[in-house]
Amino acid sequence: MRKPKIVVLGAGYGGLTTIVNLQKTLGVNEADITLVNKNDYHYETTWLHEASAGTLHADRVRYQIEDVISGHKVKFVKGSVAKIDTEGKRVILEDDSQVEYDYLVVALGGESETFGIKGLKEYAFTISNVNTARQIKEHIEYQFATYNTEEEKDDTRLTIIVGGAGFTGIEFLGELVNRVPELCREYDVDQNKVRIICVEAAPTALPGFDPELVEYAVNHLEKKGVEFKIGTAIKEGTPEGIIVGKDDVTEEIKARTVVWAAGVRGNSVIEASGFEAMRARVKVDKQLRAPGNDNIFFVGDSSLVINEEINRPYPPTAQIAMQQGALVAKNIAVLVRGQGELGEFTFDNKGTVCSLGEHDGIGVVFGRKIWGSKAAFMKKVIDNRALFIVGGPSLVLKKGKLKFL
Amino acid sequence: MRKPKIVVLGAGYGGLTTIVNLQKTLGVNEADITLVNKNDYHYETTWLHEASAGTLHADRVRYQIEDVISGHKVKFVKGSVAKIDTEGKRVILEDDSQVEYDYLVVALGGESETFGIKGLKEYAFTISNVNTARQIKEHIEYQFATYNTEEEKDDTRLTIIVGGAGFTGIEFLGELVNRVPELCREYDVDQNKVRIICVEAAPTALPGFDPELVEYAVNHLEKKGVEFKIGTAIKEGTPEGIIVGKDDVTEEIKARTVVWAAGVRGNSVIEASGFEAMRARVKVDKQLRAPGNDNIFFVGDSSLVINEEINRPYPPTAQIAMQQGALVAKNIAVLVRGQGELGEFTFDNKGTVCSLGEHDGIGVVFGRKIWGSKAAFMKKVIDNRALFIVGGPSLVLKKGKLKFL
Repeated sequence: MRKPKIVVLGAGYGGLTTIVNLQKTLGVNEADITLVNKNDYHYETTWLHEASAGTLHADRVRYQIEDVISGHKVKFVKGSVAKIDTEGKRVILEDDSQVEYDYLVVALGGESETFGIKGLKEYAFTISNVNTARQIKEHIEYQFATYNTEEEKDDTRLTIIVGGAGFTGIEFLGELVNRVPELCREYDVDQNKVRIICVEAAPTALPGFDPELVEYAVNHLEKKGVEFKIGTAIKEGTPEGIIVGKDDVTEEIKARTVVWAAGVRGNSVIEASGFEAMRARVKVDKQLRAPGNDNIFFVGDSSLVINEEINRPYPPTAQIAMQQGALVAKNIAVLVRGQGELGEFTFDNKGTVCSLGEHDGIGVVFGRKIWGSKAAFMKKVIDNRALFIVGGPSLVLKKGKLKFL
Repeated sequence: MRKPKIVVLGAGYGGLTTIVNLQKTLGVNEADITLVNKNDYHYETTWLHEASAGTLHADRVRYQIEDVISGHKVKFVKGSVAKIDTEGKRVILEDDSQVEYDYLVVALGGESETFGIKGLKEYAFTISNVNTARQIKEHIEYQFATYNTEEEKDDTRLTIIVGGAGFTGIEFLGELVNRVPELCREYDVDQNKVRIICVEAAPTALPGFDPELVEYAVNHLEKKGVEFKIGTAIKEGTPEGIIVGKDDVTEEIKARTVVWAAGVRGNSVIEASGFEAMRARVKVDKQLRAPGNDNIFFVGDSSLVINEEINRPYPPTAQIAMQQGALVAKNIAVLVRGQGELGEFTFDNKGTVCSLGEHDGIGVVFGRKIWGSKAAFMKKVIDNRALFIVGGPSLVLKKGKLKFL
């Protein structure tokens, strides 16, 4: 009897959780499992802001995929997905090789969304992956290093603009304000010359968060030198900085470093493959499948699940991706074995913590508001928990944030 | 009775050796001693190639001036010299303040000499001071970090051109070849894509060195991947790289990193002040004074001393600068006290070691050729000796290269 082929695309939070649950559940004789990923490592997307600011080494943010998969159960293919051919039931990679599937899990992660704002793609950095995080860190260091070599001092080398005061923007700012004094010491730069500016189009920072906690976060960052421009939209990115607008008044802000942290969309492969999608995210059914494709599951940033309480999509987070991955593994096992019933997804929101540097943060955990060192502690617990779910205690020991022990 | 004012300009090897000898020799009542320097730190010029390559942290290359001067004997003025007014016996700083002197020691160090080659000043880096060294390190890291973020791979980001196979060029190459494997691991770059090219206009690398040792050095570096273009001149620096010429054939070499390490001249302040000079270096008399200026001494890269054996100037080195500094301090003490005779300078060449990375090198020490680990060891001895002369054993312990102990 031919074994069904299960293929998981992407080794982010959703994909890896699917894989580790599949390899726990299914025997070698029940299915062929393949994992396809661009890199031979997984990276913690939720830690990238630290690598970008330079407060955590990029290698601390990733681990080898082979360290968490069972080699005899899961075949790993290193490759970039170009397209999913749903009729032919196969995945086409960028090197034109193909991977056939009976069951497919699309966990390709998100991409930066610039909403068509002119010049951002060309001139702004994004906190998207290990490569771009390292680039941001090195770019900032190069600007600081260059400052003192020039006779005519160019203060815009010391100006950093963060586009967006959402989750990523605020967490990045939290690291930056801690990093700046280090950078100033390292490169003999007067800290008074450094400017960190956060531009947010919405009428508040961290939209959707509890206002009291938002105020705490903004106060904390302002005290450490961040200038907030709230209700201000980036109109254009230029080689010299950005042009912003508020109430029909536009202004140019010069800065050598612009980090765009304001938008995430799904994966362009989803659009290229013809799935019906909103910003490249597929609105899945209760079983996390694409409408009309009973053998294709979507998890993480590739999927869109409506929060029926407020009739809006849940924001894409590691938490929801991992819960989806666990359910998808269960559902695929049901399909492979032809027995039992498919489970339905309900998001069990355990809370959210937004860090403000290593020793501070804000959050809502199990319905309770927390801030300060308690929030910073919970953030590390959450970070370690993600490692534990995928790789057990050994991965926590190897890659975990254990300083607090 | 008015105390004579002694002013030393520059806290490099020559200036600091002068200062520490002066403060040892003269009592507080005998003279007012002032040291003027751009930074509040001294840096080891002969170690800058390591900071530039990133094999040694820039802070390891420098120490605070206050750590080696006696505060009650020497007044330190942080400032950049604009001009020496020999008629008015005063030094004018860039902030328009003035320092009066009776005896002046000009130890302002050298500057990069690009021989009028078009585009080098604009597009090439130089290993001149702590600031430029840090900039080179950060620039290279940024190029490596950026490589993987781009869909269209730009291999010129991984090409480093070193202009000049003289002492600095070769020592920098020695560090680079050790650094490149680290960079490739750090930024996930295939080492086969990296190119290091050394362009030298002279018919040999390390002109003036023993040919057998030169061959050893070139072989060592070639084995580690350096491509040498000997007898090839840089005609022009461009935003994309350089244009080189050999036997009337020109060629463009594209590289994002070009480090010009081929020329040193004296300090432009010397020219601005009207001293007779050759490439901003003053041909001093036996007592190390400028002709016609009996109260002004020149040491280090600011001075020019002829090696009468070959009727050519001694190359500017830390060794000669420190020997000059010691004599100048002695001569000034003679003048201040009005007793004894001025000493004449003879260079006591103890030898030269050119490092090829941390564990290799070539050299001639006390007339004997050495290479390999013995040369690397001697290089560290020399480096530590320079620290010892200025700051005694405590400075060696603090800043020395003691790994070999």
